[in-house]
Amino acid sequence: MLAALPRRAASAMPSCASAFSAAARCRAYSSAAKPTLGFIGLGQMGYPMAANLARHTAQTHSLLVHDHDAATAARFAAAHPQSASVAESARAIAERADVLFTMLPAGKHCRSVYADIVEGLRHDALCVDCSTIDVATATEIAKWVKAKGAKIVDAPVSGGTGAATAGTLTFMVGGTAADADTARPFLEKMGKNIYHCGANGTGQAAKICNNMMLGICMVGVSEAFTLGKNLGLAPTLLNQILNTSSGRSWCTDTYNPVPGINPNVPASKSYAGGFGVALMSKDMGLATAAASQTQTPIVLGAAAEQVYKRVAAEKDCKGKDFSVVYQWMAAAGEK
Amino acid sequence: MLAALPRRAASAMPSCASAFSAAARCRAYSSAAKPTLGFIGLGQMGYPMAANLARHTAQTHSLLVHDHDAATAARFAAAHPQSASVAESARAIAERADVLFTMLPAGKHCRSVYADIVEGLRHDALCVDCSTIDVATATEIAKWVKAKGAKIVDAPVSGGTGAATAGTLTFMVGGTAADADTARPFLEKMGKNIYHCGANGTGQAAKICNNMMLGICMVGVSEAFTLGKNLGLAPTLLNQILNTSSGRSWCTDTYNPVPGINPNVPASKSYAGGFGVALMSKDMGLATAAASQTQTPIVLGAAAEQVYKRVAAEKDCKGKDFSVVYQWMAAAGEK
Amino acid sequence: MLAALPRRAASAMPSCASAFSAAARCRAYSSAAKPTLGFIGLGQMGYPMAANLARHTAQTHSLLVHDHDAATAARFAAAHPQSASVAESARAIAERADVLFTMLPAGKHCRSVYADIVEGLRHDALCVDCSTIDVATATEIAKWVKAKGAKIVDAPVSGGTGAATAGTLTFMVGGTAADADTARPFLEKMGKNIYHCGANGTGQAAKICNNMMLGICMVGVSEAFTLGKNLGLAPTLLNQILNTSSGRSWCTDTYNPVPGINPNVPASKSYAGGFGVALMSKDMGLATAAASQTQTPIVLGAAAEQVYKRVAAEKDCKGKDFSVVYQWMAAAGEK
Amino acid sequence: MLAALPRRAASAMPSCASAFSAAARCRAYSSAAKPTLGFIGLGQMGYPMAANLARHTAQTHSLLVHDHDAATAARFAAAHPQSASVAESARAIAERADVLFTMLPAGKHCRSVYADIVEGLRHDALCVDCSTIDVATATEIAKWVKAKGAKIVDAPVSGGTGAATAGTLTFMVGGTAADADTARPFLEKMGKNIYHCGANGTGQAAKICNNMMLGICMVGVSEAFTLGKNLGLAPTLLNQILNTSSGRSWCTDTYNPVPGINPNVPASKSYAGGFGVALMSKDMGLATAAASQTQTPIVLGAAAEQVYKRVAAEKDCKGKDFSVVYQWMAAAGEK
Repeated sequence: MLAALPRRAASAMPSCASAFSAAARCRAYSSAAKPTLGFIGLGQMGYPMAANLARHTAQTHSLLVHDHDAATAARFAAAHPQSASVAESARAIAERADVLFTMLPAGKHCRSVYADIVEGLRHDALCVDCSTIDVATATEIAKWVKAKGAKIVDAPVSGGTGAATAGTLTFMVGGTAADADTARPFLEKMGKNIYHCGANGTGQAAKICNNMMLGICMVGVSEAFTLGKNLGLAPTLLNQILNTSSGRSWCTDTYNPVPGINPNVPASKSYAGGFGVALMSKDMGLATAAASQTQTPIVLGAAAEQVYKRVAAEKDCKGKDFSVVYQWMAAAGEK
Repeated sequence: MLAALPRRAASAMPSCASAFSAAARCRAYSSAAKPTLGFIGLGQMGYPMAANLARHTAQTHSLLVHDHDAATAARFAAAHPQSASVAESARAIAERADVLFTMLPAGKHCRSVYADIVEGLRHDALCVDCSTIDVATATEIAKWVKAKGAKIVDAPVSGGTGAATAGTLTFMVGGTAADADTARPFLEKMGKNIYHCGANGTGQAAKICNNMMLGICMVGVSEAFTLGKNLGLAPTLLNQILNTSSGRSWCTDTYNPVPGINPNVPASKSYAGGFGVALMSKDMGLATAAASQTQTPIVLGAAAEQVYKRVAAEKDCKGKDFSVVYQWMAAAGEK
Repeated sequence: MLAALPRRAASAMPSCASAFSAAARCRAYSSAAKPTLGFIGLGQMGYPMAANLARHTAQTHSLLVHDHDAATAARFAAAHPQSASVAESARAIAERADVLFTMLPAGKHCRSVYADIVEGLRHDALCVDCSTIDVATATEIAKWVKAKGAKIVDAPVSGGTGAATAGTLTFMVGGTAADADTARPFLEKMGKNIYHCGANGTGQAAKICNNMMLGICMVGVSEAFTLGKNLGLAPTLLNQILNTSSGRSWCTDTYNPVPGINPNVPASKSYAGGFGVALMSKDMGLATAAASQTQTPIVLGAAAEQVYKRVAAEKDCKGKDFSVVYQWMAAAGEK
Repeated sequence: MLAALPRRAASAMPSCASAFSAAARCRAYSSAAKPTLGFIGLGQMGYPMAANLARHTAQTHSLLVHDHDAATAARFAAAHPQSASVAESARAIAERADVLFTMLPAGKHCRSVYADIVEGLRHDALCVDCSTIDVATATEIAKWVKAKGAKIVDAPVSGGTGAATAGTLTFMVGGTAADADTARPFLEKMGKNIYHCGANGTGQAAKICNNMMLGICMVGVSEAFTLGKNLGLAPTLLNQILNTSSGRSWCTDTYNPVPGINPNVPASKSYAGGFGVALMSKDMGLATAAASQTQTPIVLGAAAEQVYKRVAAEKDCKGKDFSVVYQWMAAAGEK
């Protein structure tokens, strides 16, 4: 891909020219006023994240936003009149932002958006990609951005829409220490724990390792409780044993998939809310993709991905929290 | 079983005779003196368990012991002269014990010993099988014993030789509430937590469900740390993220398989001591056997069993703690 | 087993006596007349097998039959008046048969029947167990029988009820060469291919190895066709490619799980008939049990077992041919 | 990504101009002389394929070749002086070829080469990508090429270097029927079976479905023979049973992984030659990637990939035929 980039640079004279004029405009502008933040992708996660960012930077920064759905962008700007305004395009944000946040659904969207904006990035700009995507795409996009002289960190989040709204997300940041430090004060407006994990891609790596572990544990716990049920064990008793013994995990003591054991988790609310089984299926796919690329055998990770793909396709489970995997298993156990 | 059958045939008449006279002797005897406990199987676990039992019941009970290795039984009796004496055979213990404990390596040994002693059991005797065996054999043996009018609970333990010596084992008891209550004061001499799990076999069920969960978690954690390593993540950082997030488990916060993360676990001592990988492989086999018998699909449990069978056969891993599975995986990751 | 034990105890003396007198009667009888065959278990497979045996040995042998359902045994005897008669019990057959066939559903039934009859076996009798059971039980039962001075081979079949009726079964025989030779002329009345596989238990071993391979292949083929479908491949074209290439197997060229590819297989008849998915689930369980006992890792065998257990429990699949696993997978693929 | 292309078009005026002049040159040239074929990638597979193409089209076409290793390209041209000549770059081939073949190691190489040449492609050119890559990349590249008005089919091969040299490869072609027909006469110079599978990407789909099936089968067969060995079965006998029964597959009757069963396969030559285990691991990774993208659960395909990744990393197995998985398993079985 790097081979391709110089040519894009070479053949991009006109767009470079416009980039420079844009940069010029921008520099003039920002010397006169506040520095500019950009936010591309105002979905279920992106919207509340950008809202916290706008709220806490209104005095110090202006914020340009863009979403493939123009109405959403307009609604956001209307809700944050002090600092936010809608940009005509993602490219237009790239040409003006000092720090640019992206929050997109999957690797292919990041690939498309960054291929679109990379030519326009200001040479001193920092990109912060909060999307959860595969490590290979994250590192490839980092190469494109750095080839243009700009900076980038991957900063995927954990915590879900609740934490996004509360501003209590956990960020796992991959990039240079300097770039992570530049991003930190902004990330702290949206989250609580900020981990610098290492080079570009390691933010994504940390997230998929945690979510793979979570995904494996939840399937394992569901198997243990289903087997226990079929052997005549009361789930409450089994859970008491697991939690005072070596079978304890976050999935048993905090987010138990058996209805009624933990009061306020999705399992006790018909598996509503929480972390969708389709999202878990996607994250498990990112883990197995990273494992294929690094020739890392992950027997349980790969097996768990297949389970989530199946459960995510079951009509009784679609759209439910990933702990619904227990319901899917326990139902089959019934004779 | 082979050994058992001819004896059953050959000694059918005479042993019945002696059974009655023994019973007679026994009843006379116990009316005159202390009630009798029996303990069959003085192995690595059985010996320290029986020692605690002897120590705390010396004033109230006499203890008859038997082991296939006569020297071990003699050594035990010599060490507990106040209360313990060696019985000429397992059958002889059956004919005199009010409460009879068995601690044997596997289902086939229990099948053979109980086939041998069942005819001789006193009609008011209680058998307490502390062996970890398959649920099917446990429930079949319970039928034999009850068919003779005697009582039985399965009471497998967790905690290992350390807890056996310290008298801090956890017992998972399967049987009637009344029989579990009869066993409890004796189990409290050898352990700390006593869980009554339900009908006969549920003690074994609880143990294999916990150990299956543990076995799955440890393989999953090993995969997560190996994948993380291959993606450039420092294990200490990844562990910090897992433990403050949804990937937390007993295997990450207490018994981490990565050397140096938890100071006093086997992983930090070249995987010495702990719970042998061959024993974990055996327990995973009990889980998959119970799953086959109850038609319970356990995708991860079955996959993890295959991993432990492989690791247990590797010359660098033989005899080590089951967390050595991480070392086995991480080594393969190395390019 | 429960039923067996009291009887063994209660009837020990008298039955020994009657065993001898029975043996005496029997020896006198058989010197005077035809040698005696026995057949225990007249189920879906056993009935047509015994029928072929009766048909082809009417001139040379008398046949004693027993089934837990007395009406079935009576119906059989009525259908073969020349040679067959009903025995009052399995034990009564043991006391008189020169060659004794058993065809039972599972290991626990074999364990119970052989525990019941073993004391009564004539010292020169040959037992031929045609049941498909776990290797451990087969070898244990062989020990019991040999301890009584009688002979035994395990001789599980493949081919299903069609081949049982046609007398074209395949027998996989485990035992001494001499005992296999003694069994051969009788097995040839019921089957076409007779393989002597080695020592006791190897007949069962050969069958489970073949069926495990079959079970893995069918799941794999179902995955390949489901993935192909989801990637836009016509099943007929994919099958043409597989069959002219390295993906070919009995499951692709002879017993294809995709409806309409092979005209007369269950897949083309709504998965009716054939080899029930519950039976495949059972056989996969025998394979994983043998693998646990020999510490043999079988990653795919174990994974396939879990799939069959799940499919066997699905209401749309219950009672159908095991190739219905494709239907179960393809349905989930549908968006 | 499509979003990106118009910009590349817009900003590529100069290169377009040169493309046209090149096209002009080319058209003039080809009206005066033979049409031009191009071949990019002269590796272990590409070199003998291009050699067959050159040999059989010497009278009718000129051939331009390129390889990242200039010496290889020069050696090829020297070996085919009648028709072949070396192009200064991949881009230069694109600007002149009527039909352009690419044979590259993996998706990232295809992505890079096509990103490089796509601007230069003649509007009536047909690209034939013989590389084995992931379906997603194949379909994305097809979009780029079609956006430039050129044509493309994916045409991955099966058969290995032997078939490449002999000109007996199997091609699985994905693209329009018209484009497949245009490619056919050239593919017939290099192969024996040409399958048109459907739209762009289905050639890759067909190949990975076949290879996934093959990969699953080989692991399954290795498990069956290892379990058989551990249960006391002679491999030759087990193979005889499998091949006359339902366990038969290409892996048992043609390419058996047990040394000595099939005379001329890698397994009988210390696993030398054949299809490298690392290549099988890669192809299994393509299958699991396609399965993740289509949300298709492939329990066995995913499990088999993990096995190959492990085996490919074992020092005794590196560089050997993928059937070495049997050796890896059987060794562990040994006590």
